[in-house]
Amino acid sequence: MSEPILLTPGPLTTTRRTKEAMLVDWGSWDGAFNALTASVCRDLAAIANAGDSHVCVPLQGSGTFAVEAALGTLVAKTGKVLVPNNGAYCQRIVRILGTLGRTAVVLDIPEDRPADPERIDAALLADPAITHVAQVHCETGTGILNPLAEVAAVVHRRGRRLIVDAMSSFGAIAIDVQAMPMDALVAASGKCLEGVPGMGFVIARRSALEAAGGQCHSLALDLCDQWLYMQKTGQWRFTPPTHVVAALRSAIDQYLAEGGQPARLARYADNCAVLIGGLRRSGLATFLDDAVQAPIIVTFHAPDDPAYDFGEMYRRVREKGFILYPGKLTAVETFRVGCIGAIGPDAMRRAVCAIEDALCAMGVRNFAPA
Amino acid sequence: MSEPILLTPGPLTTTRRTKEAMLVDWGSWDGAFNALTASVCRDLAAIANAGDSHVCVPLQGSGTFAVEAALGTLVAKTGKVLVPNNGAYCQRIVRILGTLGRTAVVLDIPEDRPADPERIDAALLADPAITHVAQVHCETGTGILNPLAEVAAVVHRRGRRLIVDAMSSFGAIAIDVQAMPMDALVAASGKCLEGVPGMGFVIARRSALEAAGGQCHSLALDLCDQWLYMQKTGQWRFTPPTHVVAALRSAIDQYLAEGGQPARLARYADNCAVLIGGLRRSGLATFLDDAVQAPIIVTFHAPDDPAYDFGEMYRRVREKGFILYPGKLTAVETFRVGCIGAIGPDAMRRAVCAIEDALCAMGVRNFAPA
Repeated sequence: MSEPILLTPGPLTTTRRTKEAMLVDWGSWDGAFNALTASVCRDLAAIANAGDSHVCVPLQGSGTFAVEAALGTLVAKTGKVLVPNNGAYCQRIVRILGTLGRTAVVLDIPEDRPADPERIDAALLADPAITHVAQVHCETGTGILNPLAEVAAVVHRRGRRLIVDAMSSFGAIAIDVQAMPMDALVAASGKCLEGVPGMGFVIARRSALEAAGGQCHSLALDLCDQWLYMQKTGQWRFTPPTHVVAALRSAIDQYLAEGGQPARLARYADNCAVLIGGLRRSGLATFLDDAVQAPIIVTFHAPDDPAYDFGEMYRRVREKGFILYPGKLTAVETFRVGCIGAIGPDAMRRAVCAIEDALCAMGVRNFAPA
Repeated sequence: MSEPILLTPGPLTTTRRTKEAMLVDWGSWDGAFNALTASVCRDLAAIANAGDSHVCVPLQGSGTFAVEAALGTLVAKTGKVLVPNNGAYCQRIVRILGTLGRTAVVLDIPEDRPADPERIDAALLADPAITHVAQVHCETGTGILNPLAEVAAVVHRRGRRLIVDAMSSFGAIAIDVQAMPMDALVAASGKCLEGVPGMGFVIARRSALEAAGGQCHSLALDLCDQWLYMQKTGQWRFTPPTHVVAALRSAIDQYLAEGGQPARLARYADNCAVLIGGLRRSGLATFLDDAVQAPIIVTFHAPDDPAYDFGEMYRRVREKGFILYPGKLTAVETFRVGCIGAIGPDAMRRAVCAIEDALCAMGVRNFAPA
């Protein structure tokens, strides 16, 4: 059987060319590898329109390591962070802040509703002690897109600092750190840039990083120290995931050749339209309204039929060459299908057929939700 | 030019087969990947003779991330850690403990002398508040081998806990956690197991891990949480470096087929003998006595000749296909050559010639140290 296509929000399906970039061993102290790192950081910064105000600091580990690093490095021990919460990754930020002993103020929002800039504004006005807002851009738990530009404007107007978890959106959905003021944008190699997993990165405001020396709770996750060392030596402080960095270099080359963010968004939007259109015709329903759905990952309600079982559907769809993702909601039964990765609408059409065929073969008659 | 051979202590030269294992995209939620992770952890535990008392917990990031994770997870906030210090990686542990707010007691040892079990014993006897000893096995800063079995016996006899940084020795030098009592052995994918860099792991005493819930300073680096989640789900908590894990699986297969630790040690010892023998014949001198030299990485004194320049030697040797490593000592000028990676004595013989040729071409006449 050929390798299954990953309809998951990272790790995802990468091109053969990206994977082949890992067929070389790089010396982590060597000038050629330093140049590779520098070029990756330069391109990542440019994608965010970093200009002179922001710098890209790469970090070993998964995206969550980079989120914790940004919070631990940039929020002082006496800081207070407002977290608009409409999903699992918002809750993970709250958990990180708790572990780090930073005060979190949670603004609960229903999981099918985007963050509300007016409520954020009111919360900031009501509590002058809040120093930061931590905003998830596309909440992968459901696939909802939060209104980043509007949130950034409110936070800026109130004189607070913004930290953005753009893990599953960066590269596909436009983010401009000049137009949307923020101190940090956090993302990772193995998402919409279509690299392999193993490194995160933070596009951080230079002045915020400069002011953050010595306040991180961790040595490994200290972005300030990582940045200073890299400035001085061109090297990572600790052994870099050399093959992952080389794969990301190749993935960014392909990204730029495809046409950058607008082209990536257009392809994912096509994938998403084929997926939602196809499965809706079968009777399946999306959890989110189209108006707030990001073309990254789609949550579908489980069919209200006694023959439905996620595990069984997963196995059958996998046999047909596609890997799905379970739902992450506790209140309603759902499953998720990613739209991202090195795939196009044709693969999505086949995936739609595979899901329909699997459900029919299982004896599911009613595709509609409860 | 063909790819240079890395004479560096990780990243190092891996086999083509190991790198080709990265040509597949794995779903991090998929059963096949969970089985891959489980098999890697099982084999890593077996290499350390973990038995039922110890478990293997993998962690995203570089080896230092895993060292910090072990210290942060296993040492209580009120803990006190004795660090026998004979090199850069010992000092890194001291720095991590400082960042974490754990008290460190540093036992300074000259960099060319191994840790002294009698001095450790005396230090433990003198200070009953010391809860842990953090011992580096092979100190990569110089290449010195510390007497792990003797240190473990002393720490055990005094009723304290031992955490071992075996980053550059694990897989090549025998470590038996039953015969050498320890709470944690820390190593990484891209060292003597000859995988690619991107994940660390900790072989931890099950009872110590069970007692450590909630005491870690970090969410990302919380080994206890990682282990509990993996026990429950078979999955990593946060996106795993899937390709790195697949490469490590392949590298371990090759390791076992080669004959495991004794065979790996024999090959590295051959490499080391060729390297030291060859360069000594040229007049170069090792920093360490042979009796304390691990066959992992060798520190050579810089030639006492005005024509010598490390950067120039590095470039010339690189042109001949070998990547060297700079020295890490502050008091004397040195350079380092690794003996590890998917290379044998033939490559080492060529490396010796490349170094000699480079120095001669640079006009170095006196190869002896000052």
